[in-house]
Amino acid sequence: MSSDTVDDAGVYLLDEESALVFTTDFFTPVVDDARDFGRIAAANAVSDVYAMGGSPLIGVNIVCFPDGDLPPELLAEILLGSREKMDEAGAAVVGGHSVSDRELKFGLAVIGKVAPERLVRNSGAAEGDVLVLTKPIGTGVMTTALKNEALDPEGLARVTAVMSELNRSASAAMVEAAADAATDVTGFGLLGHAVGMAKAGGVTLELDVASVPLIEGAMDAISAGYRAGGLFSNQHYYRKFTKVKSRADALLLELLNDPQTSGGLLVALPEDRVEVFAAAYAEAGGERYWRIGRVLPRGEKPVVLV
Amino acid sequence: MSSDTVDDAGVYLLDEESALVFTTDFFTPVVDDARDFGRIAAANAVSDVYAMGGSPLIGVNIVCFPDGDLPPELLAEILLGSREKMDEAGAAVVGGHSVSDRELKFGLAVIGKVAPERLVRNSGAAEGDVLVLTKPIGTGVMTTALKNEALDPEGLARVTAVMSELNRSASAAMVEAAADAATDVTGFGLLGHAVGMAKAGGVTLELDVASVPLIEGAMDAISAGYRAGGLFSNQHYYRKFTKVKSRADALLLELLNDPQTSGGLLVALPEDRVEVFAAAYAEAGGERYWRIGRVLPRGEKPVVLV
Repeated sequence: MSSDTVDDAGVYLLDEESALVFTTDFFTPVVDDARDFGRIAAANAVSDVYAMGGSPLIGVNIVCFPDGDLPPELLAEILLGSREKMDEAGAAVVGGHSVSDRELKFGLAVIGKVAPERLVRNSGAAEGDVLVLTKPIGTGVMTTALKNEALDPEGLARVTAVMSELNRSASAAMVEAAADAATDVTGFGLLGHAVGMAKAGGVTLELDVASVPLIEGAMDAISAGYRAGGLFSNQHYYRKFTKVKSRADALLLELLNDPQTSGGLLVALPEDRVEVFAAAYAEAGGERYWRIGRVLPRGEKPVVLV
Repeated sequence: MSSDTVDDAGVYLLDEESALVFTTDFFTPVVDDARDFGRIAAANAVSDVYAMGGSPLIGVNIVCFPDGDLPPELLAEILLGSREKMDEAGAAVVGGHSVSDRELKFGLAVIGKVAPERLVRNSGAAEGDVLVLTKPIGTGVMTTALKNEALDPEGLARVTAVMSELNRSASAAMVEAAADAATDVTGFGLLGHAVGMAKAGGVTLELDVASVPLIEGAMDAISAGYRAGGLFSNQHYYRKFTKVKSRADALLLELLNDPQTSGGLLVALPEDRVEVFAAAYAEAGGERYWRIGRVLPRGEKPVVLV
């Protein structure tokens, strides 16, 4: 239940042909626009299902709302954004639960379905696999800049687009390519989720720092000193699991610990299936992905940065 | 999504033989003991599944926790209580989501399974049906008395026992008796949920006020002036749907609006199946139920109190 152990969804085998994936996530607003927040929260909530190769079926809204302080229209906008994104994901919203709270929080509990033989866990990364990432990072520093009114409209549009994007195409592609392992990149940052995948698989992940994609504006945000609180705790926690051989810029290394909201999928798959992945990804409407490293036999540390 | 429309769980048909029931509920502590709070929250969360005739399969914890202000051991106790109750319900807890929050809140999102032909909705109440209630009411006034340090230990033990009790036996019995309709009695109070059942079924529910069971101590609590905030809003909202012919004590009438936490099932079933219900309920370990009224053709108001 603690944040250390729960980043993937729970799985329940219904019968030989189908399993349920069950996940929940909710948080305080990361952007000011209510409808965008709803979209982002929904994209984020279904992401755990996609990370396991499943399809979202149904969601229920989870709402903490300051009834007296905020207009009900704002909640209506959030729910509208959420529903739009759930529609796009092909999932139904079947209700929800609302509590009165001092601080607005929103998210969903989501059920997905997956055929057991298509289930992708975070534990299967194998020596020789290539590591692929499907979204650039930097949402934490950029939304922190936004909170401090230090993000320009173009930067806001870019980070909003990244966070609102479903991981559906990436999920379809990795299932098609029979990927060995996957995880979605969220609160623990790229490095933290890489450590999780390495430990679960008993391997070492080598990340080529220079090839890690950044959202345009992320480097400016961290250069200007905008860091989410979670960046520091990730840094503190994952340092001992990481060997740094890279001579990359210190700020770039820090960004590996930036907590992501609705980040992309980190996928491990054999070199000879990357082409299948790429073709399936494009076919499903995916636009960009990056090769950011490879899987080594378990070495001194779970992750090595080169 | 509003509190007006969502008291039952969402249902999703998987195939001809099985449907999923999906529900979520969480709230601030109703008792001081952390483990009891966990038990109550879990019993309450699975109640929606039982109300539809289903079996809880899996749950995920939903935690809002003031990290700095409360010791982590307290959260551990809550989770332990929740897991005990989920074990009793035969459901697995497969993770959860935790956010830092100023005010402690806990609950679960729960998936249940139900065979479509056994699904009991709140809309099927038919003229001539008997109304049965499986738990006494009064949890709102008694927990309000508790918050004001005006509930004696025996009263606390009684209300805790009522709120921690699973609706499993009641659910099994109503399915066995092929009940026409059911709902669990929660935040809208007995009257509010009766109105919901009446409106959904296009009938009028006649409640015999004198036969409505009260938790011992509930009348003392309301006499002493302890009322939950929700009691007033329920009173205000459901007044227009209710015809009062009863000459019962005003306080007793007020208690029909008392918001319940983890209340019992209100079940509508044909007179000639009450014996089947009673036998199945006892067989499943149920101890008490009360006949509290009957279903009439739709009259002037959805509910009439006699």
